[in-house]
Amino acid sequence: MNKRLENLIAWMKESDVQVTFLTSSENVFYLSGFYSDPHERLLGLAVFQEGEPFLVCPGMEKHSVRRTGWSQEIIAYSDIEDPWELINKSIAGRVSGASKVAIEKEHMNVERYEKISSLFPKAEFVSAEEKLRVLRMIKDEKELKIIKEACALADYAVEFGASEIKEGKTELEILSAVEFALKKKGVTEMSFATMVLTGANAASPHGTPGLTKIQKGDLVLFDLGVVIDRYCSDITRTVAYGDVNEKQKEIYDTVLKAQLAAVEASKPGATCAEVDLTARRIISEAGYGEYFPHRLGHGLGISVHEYPSMMETNTLVLREGMVYTIEPGIYVPDVAGVRIEDDIVITANGAEILTKFPKELQVYR
Amino acid sequence: MNKRLENLIAWMKESDVQVTFLTSSENVFYLSGFYSDPHERLLGLAVFQEGEPFLVCPGMEKHSVRRTGWSQEIIAYSDIEDPWELINKSIAGRVSGASKVAIEKEHMNVERYEKISSLFPKAEFVSAEEKLRVLRMIKDEKELKIIKEACALADYAVEFGASEIKEGKTELEILSAVEFALKKKGVTEMSFATMVLTGANAASPHGTPGLTKIQKGDLVLFDLGVVIDRYCSDITRTVAYGDVNEKQKEIYDTVLKAQLAAVEASKPGATCAEVDLTARRIISEAGYGEYFPHRLGHGLGISVHEYPSMMETNTLVLREGMVYTIEPGIYVPDVAGVRIEDDIVITANGAEILTKFPKELQVYR
Repeated sequence: MNKRLENLIAWMKESDVQVTFLTSSENVFYLSGFYSDPHERLLGLAVFQEGEPFLVCPGMEKHSVRRTGWSQEIIAYSDIEDPWELINKSIAGRVSGASKVAIEKEHMNVERYEKISSLFPKAEFVSAEEKLRVLRMIKDEKELKIIKEACALADYAVEFGASEIKEGKTELEILSAVEFALKKKGVTEMSFATMVLTGANAASPHGTPGLTKIQKGDLVLFDLGVVIDRYCSDITRTVAYGDVNEKQKEIYDTVLKAQLAAVEASKPGATCAEVDLTARRIISEAGYGEYFPHRLGHGLGISVHEYPSMMETNTLVLREGMVYTIEPGIYVPDVAGVRIEDDIVITANGAEILTKFPKELQVYR
Repeated sequence: MNKRLENLIAWMKESDVQVTFLTSSENVFYLSGFYSDPHERLLGLAVFQEGEPFLVCPGMEKHSVRRTGWSQEIIAYSDIEDPWELINKSIAGRVSGASKVAIEKEHMNVERYEKISSLFPKAEFVSAEEKLRVLRMIKDEKELKIIKEACALADYAVEFGASEIKEGKTELEILSAVEFALKKKGVTEMSFATMVLTGANAASPHGTPGLTKIQKGDLVLFDLGVVIDRYCSDITRTVAYGDVNEKQKEIYDTVLKAQLAAVEASKPGATCAEVDLTARRIISEAGYGEYFPHRLGHGLGISVHEYPSMMETNTLVLREGMVYTIEPGIYVPDVAGVRIEDDIVITANGAEILTKFPKELQVYR
């Protein structure tokens, strides 16, 4: 039994949950090591207080499950079998008449809920999602190693993209070049839709890359991340093409100051709110408060947005092993948009920065 | 009330369903004309036998809903409001104590199901999905016009991609060039992950584009589609780079013969099974039956895979207005992979072909 399953089972015992049945690719992967996007087919992981857990997957995936090192039971069903009948048999050997069953209420659909309800007609169904979010929030050494690799590739992508900047090139041209460069390094999936925004287009926190051409005097914003071994990175850098004006510089310097202060404030014992407010105060005092309309950052891992949420209302206390983004931004319509984002991990000494591309304003000519 | 809503309401009356509450972006769009991907927020459309339908959306989308021409009630909720309270009020004015409510059981999650169940504590919940699939299967003039536009762009993409073929270029290089060319034409979304496969890599129905380089004598397979105004196209063409050998030609000719015969067999009154088997027989008689491991095709519309399913066990009778793909393929490991796919619409006279790129083997040098 791996440590992660043990943590889940400890919670099940505390909460008197006899069975947990998870169906999201992310949580099944987190607990079993096996990742698959089964589309409309069923993927599932059943966990018990005492009995051996089992994994349910389409027949053709059985060998992949074994290869990932899952040594416990696998229910591999063919397209003509009903997986719920097989699940029922395997459960019957482990528990009878469960009174409390945990599922993912935000993920499981009604069709499957009706199936699992019929297996446990007397059970109360509770959500396992909050517990999984909390468990996934603290990263272990193995996870950190992969996230660091994903961050290094994000650094490379920004460096490559910035070097491609040239008068008259469009945002989409640079974006295509960046993604192709990553593919050549073996990257097959981005964490989210890559952003390359220039000039006025960057001055909106929800801009979309298009056919806007890069011009001298523009600030160019890159926001991107890669998925490596199922873990995400997420970086933002804003660079200058040619000489920028005093207003642009002032905005850049304010964001940078806020970002550095939030990194400095990130350490065990501080709260998410304190870190968010550290950055927010600097931006407000410089007169740009209304132009920083989003939270400071978000946790990062198997999902590109997970716990902890770095916002001014979150009193959660930071602990070693938490990984999150620090990404203040200022967006003044028709003037400039600047965001600077690092991924960091909390260590005993404070924040270790995982994204390394320089943060002093880089000027390309 | 639009025609599509009228059709749904007719079904509700027949089936004694008092309320239908839909939450998938596709079905809400089909019935209301409004498309949105609300992520974790709630989007919904409530339909009644007698009362006015209403649409539920995040507050910031209200104006977009009006712009699409939705003239009935809109419940636009802010991030601090509970949409279910607002829904409850609007429902109370229309029905009380519903005994049968239709939802999308494959789409709705348990969290929302618990909310809607509490609004209708005595109701039986049934699935609306099958009915929506059947309604969406017959396309109207407006839908066909958009699908034709999406098909024309798919033709363009294959033509552009084939013209980019050059000794030593990788699959991913060609793929990137094709997608960038489409972006310049205003295409912002592909129907699915674009496939460019060459040589042995094309000889698997589940190949993934990578760093394989195109060589003289290769067959190069393009499988792609674009989304225009929410409707999908889907085309496959296999072209030759330089001279190909007799075996490759024989496989190509067999697939083409099967494809043409299936187009010919497509007309009102024929069944899906008959059309699939028309192609399958030709491939089997040529000795390649075991190398054609998938169904002949699938319906196409707002989703890239919808009804009708063109498979040998489907006895559904074809009718005017149905749109589907015809895409036989032969994949002989280490020898060749060929697939030829058109999108067609059933008319009174038979199949009208919507994808126009030539199907005789095109040779590039």
